[in-house]
Amino acid sequence: MSDVLQQLARILEERKRADAGQSYVAGLYARGPQAVLKKIGEEATELVMAGMEKDDEALVHEAADLWFHTLVLLAQRGLGPDDVLAELERRFGRSGIEEKASRG
Amino acid sequence: MSDVLQQLARILEERKRADAGQSYVAGLYARGPQAVLKKIGEEATELVMAGMEKDDEALVHEAADLWFHTLVLLAQRGLGPDDVLAELERRFGRSGIEEKASRG
Amino acid sequence: MSDVLQQLARILEERKRADAGQSYVAGLYARGPQAVLKKIGEEATELVMAGMEKDDEALVHEAADLWFHTLVLLAQRGLGPDDVLAELERRFGRSGIEEKASRG
Amino acid sequence: MSDVLQQLARILEERKRADAGQSYVAGLYARGPQAVLKKIGEEATELVMAGMEKDDEALVHEAADLWFHTLVLLAQRGLGPDDVLAELERRFGRSGIEEKASRG
Repeated sequence: MSDVLQQLARILEERKRADAGQSYVAGLYARGPQAVLKKIGEEATELVMAGMEKDDEALVHEAADLWFHTLVLLAQRGLGPDDVLAELERRFGRSGIEEKASRG
Repeated sequence: MSDVLQQLARILEERKRADAGQSYVAGLYARGPQAVLKKIGEEATELVMAGMEKDDEALVHEAADLWFHTLVLLAQRGLGPDDVLAELERRFGRSGIEEKASRG
Repeated sequence: MSDVLQQLARILEERKRADAGQSYVAGLYARGPQAVLKKIGEEATELVMAGMEKDDEALVHEAADLWFHTLVLLAQRGLGPDDVLAELERRFGRSGIEEKASRG
Repeated sequence: MSDVLQQLARILEERKRADAGQSYVAGLYARGPQAVLKKIGEEATELVMAGMEKDDEALVHEAADLWFHTLVLLAQRGLGPDDVLAELERRFGRSGIEEKASRG
C-alpha cells in the first residue's frame, strides 16, 4: 500500500507531457496553478460536507480527492509526497507531534 | 518514508486515550467531530494561500497540516490512511486515473 | 444602492418557479441544497485567492459572487438578506461589535 | 434595515485608528491582510457546515460572520459594501442575472 503515493507522483510527472484534452491532470496543468488551488478549495469543502454525514465511503472518496489534488499542486511546483511525509515525520518524531499542541 | 502515515495513524489512535489538556490531538477529539472539520477548512485555506506565493517550504508545511488533520478526521471515524491510499490505487490502476477525466 | 439586496432576494424567490434549464439559479435549486454549499466553498476560495493579489475589481467581483451564493442559500431556506442585516445590526449596536472581540 | 452595511463600513473605517488590543477588528487589521483571508476561509467553512444542518438561526449567524469578514477585507483595501452592491446590481439589471447562467 505504502508506495501508492510514489507511483501516483510518477504518473503526475508523466502527465506533464500528456495532451490536455486527453488527460484530466494534463488539463489541470494547462489551466495554470490557480486552477489546482480552486480544486483544493472545492475538494476541501466536499470533504467537510462529507464529514457532516455518516457515509464512510463518501468520506474516504472525498479525502482521496483532496489528497490527489494536493499531489497535483505539489507536482506543479516540482515537489512531491515525500516532502509532505518528511515534514510529518519531523513533527511526530521525538519531541514530535505534541510540540504542535502549543501552536495549534 | 512510506510508513510515516501508518505510524502517524497509530499515534492518532493512542491519542484517543490521552488527556485533552496534554495533547493537541486529544484536545481536538474532545471538542467533537465539527472541530476537526473546521480545522480542515482552515488548513485548506492556508494551503491555497501558500499556493499563491513562491515559498516551497511554506507550501509543504501547509500540505502537511492539511493531511495531518485529514488523518485526525479519518481516525475519529475509525478509518485511516490505508483507506485513502486504497481509493487512490483503485483510481489510477489499469483504466485508472484518466477515468476521472470524465467526471472532473 | 441600499435595496439591491432586497431586489435580488425577490428575483431569487421568483426563480423558484423558473425552468432549471433556463436560469442559473433555478438550475442550482434543482441540484439541491448541497450544490449551493459547494458553490459557497468555491466562491470563498476564489475570494481568498483574489485577496492574495492586487486587483480590486477582481476582489469586488469575487465578493459579489460569494454574497450572491449566500443569498441563494438563504433563499433556499426561506431566509433572506434582512435576516443577515438584522444579525449584523444586533452585533454592532450599543455594546455592539466589540462584544465580538471576546469570542473571535 | 438597508443602511446597516453603510453604518458597518463607517465603523470598520474608524477601527483603523483603534487600539489592536481593544478592538477585534483593529486586532485583525494589525495582523495583516492574510489574517482576514484566513478568517474568510474559516467562516465560509462554518457557513457550509451550518448549511448541512437545520438550524436557521445558526445559518444566519454564520452568514453574518462571513459577510462581516468580507467587509473587513474590503475595508482593508479601501473598498466597501457599495462596491459589492453595485456589482450585484450590474449583474441583475436588464439582461442581468441570467447572463451569469452561461458562465456558472
